[in-house]
Amino acid sequence: MTDDRLSGVLSPVVTPFKDNLDPDPERLIKQCQWLLSQNVGLAVFGTNSEANSLSVDEKILLLNQLAAGGVDTGRMMPGTGCCALTDSVKLTAHAAKLGCAGTLMLPPFYYKGVSDEGIFASFAEVIERVGDESLRIYLYHIPPIAQVGFSVDLIERLVTRFPRTIVGIKDSSGDWDNTASMLERKWDDFRVFVGSESFLLANMRNGGAGCISATANVNPAAIDRLFKSWQNDDAEQQQQALDDIRNTVMAYPMIPALKATVADFSGDGQWRTVRPPLLPLNEEKSVALAKALRGKNFAMPGL
Amino acid sequence: MTDDRLSGVLSPVVTPFKDNLDPDPERLIKQCQWLLSQNVGLAVFGTNSEANSLSVDEKILLLNQLAAGGVDTGRMMPGTGCCALTDSVKLTAHAAKLGCAGTLMLPPFYYKGVSDEGIFASFAEVIERVGDESLRIYLYHIPPIAQVGFSVDLIERLVTRFPRTIVGIKDSSGDWDNTASMLERKWDDFRVFVGSESFLLANMRNGGAGCISATANVNPAAIDRLFKSWQNDDAEQQQQALDDIRNTVMAYPMIPALKATVADFSGDGQWRTVRPPLLPLNEEKSVALAKALRGKNFAMPGL
Repeated sequence: MTDDRLSGVLSPVVTPFKDNLDPDPERLIKQCQWLLSQNVGLAVFGTNSEANSLSVDEKILLLNQLAAGGVDTGRMMPGTGCCALTDSVKLTAHAAKLGCAGTLMLPPFYYKGVSDEGIFASFAEVIERVGDESLRIYLYHIPPIAQVGFSVDLIERLVTRFPRTIVGIKDSSGDWDNTASMLERKWDDFRVFVGSESFLLANMRNGGAGCISATANVNPAAIDRLFKSWQNDDAEQQQQALDDIRNTVMAYPMIPALKATVADFSGDGQWRTVRPPLLPLNEEKSVALAKALRGKNFAMPGL
Repeated sequence: MTDDRLSGVLSPVVTPFKDNLDPDPERLIKQCQWLLSQNVGLAVFGTNSEANSLSVDEKILLLNQLAAGGVDTGRMMPGTGCCALTDSVKLTAHAAKLGCAGTLMLPPFYYKGVSDEGIFASFAEVIERVGDESLRIYLYHIPPIAQVGFSVDLIERLVTRFPRTIVGIKDSSGDWDNTASMLERKWDDFRVFVGSESFLLANMRNGGAGCISATANVNPAAIDRLFKSWQNDDAEQQQQALDDIRNTVMAYPMIPALKATVADFSGDGQWRTVRPPLLPLNEEKSVALAKALRGKNFAMPGL
């Protein structure tokens, strides 16, 4: 085991916006500190962070503001994979320079049907250009959205060529068989995170490293509890309770629903703001979601 | 008819790279001048330009270099639609400031399953932030790659709200019925370009404005000839000849094949270079493609 690899539960932290749609660093710092207080790590700039609606310069500025605001970069795994090679290099290099524990990297996702060889070439180029020994990359496999992903053979090729840099993956395929096929390869200390806590127990039972899940934005403590106690007798029961909360939120469009929940349980309505092309949850749905969650005795203590 | 709207044939100009994968402005200027000499307009930064593998700053620099190099911005329709709202605003504003005849805009394409309302909000925000009366936007509908597109009802809503700004579309759906459904609406002087010259004759016969096609990089004069003479008796024959060349090139991965063809017929091998995640055509395929084209008496005079 190498100490600098991550495990546990991380949240793709939702990004707060001001009325003019600029990111709001103060609210983001506060949210990150709250998540850390729940023992949940910070996968800032994930899909659920609306990171793909932010420019690279906006993300660099936010990273600087988080670091300056005292948020521990050693608990951060920012998303740094962009369509453009030069964007990925710039953002990844900056994250490494700031001491981020790792970066979570989408493959270049505009061009479809690209070859494993082409994706390999892209990562090789980024790693060479960043040229930072401290860089730790977690691959971000989310074919339902990116439409471009990592085959198990491609991962093996990357791990073999860059064993100290390519150290893990977030599997958001939603397909347990795919996750299992990665775990079966047993690459040396390779960290497999599932992209949903629905697979957390299965992942832990099969040698996985944890999960990086949207719902960790709102239900962090309970997810972390299962991560820590998956060998306990009540693990299945915990898993069921996590699934219940997740399904309640997922009945609505994910990102607006997460933001509505943070807004409702923090009393800070500014959290509802999203950037186009997303739209905020309407009043009716917001009320229904909050009611459904309260009906399950759901809470966000300390928020 | 308003004079500042485009029609005819445009090429999503392939982007030359140096060995270090930087864009090569000198070669691009030369290619643009050659295309203009064939009466083909410049849809720089299209899909086939590998534009989504370039950062916004790289694209702004290239636009400046093209303008400084004497390439007529009045014949340009650069691609300016990005995932991030702020990127789209920055690049679109710059293109308008340089006097580009129009911009070709993808919808934000990372988040899938977004609503028409959300895409509308995105374009409304870009138009308001750019705040340039001279801005002319051509929507870029390419669902096979972007996976996010424009419904006919969304286009109608955009045209109705922004009649002087949303002035046309490139339909790369590959579905003639979709193009026909746009033409049927007969929005006032709305310019419908097909994304392939395979549909050029059908488009012209139904009131379309022309085509913006990858193959215009290599076969510009013949495509322009059909655009000008589609009412001639030999139009069907011309269309067949265009299809034959297109099918010959399309038997290989499109962008590498276009670049290999430019390299082969110009004698400048540097054109073969692509950015990851794309890979250049291998030697065997390059030779086979060039041979197939020469067997059809294909040439690129003046290149």
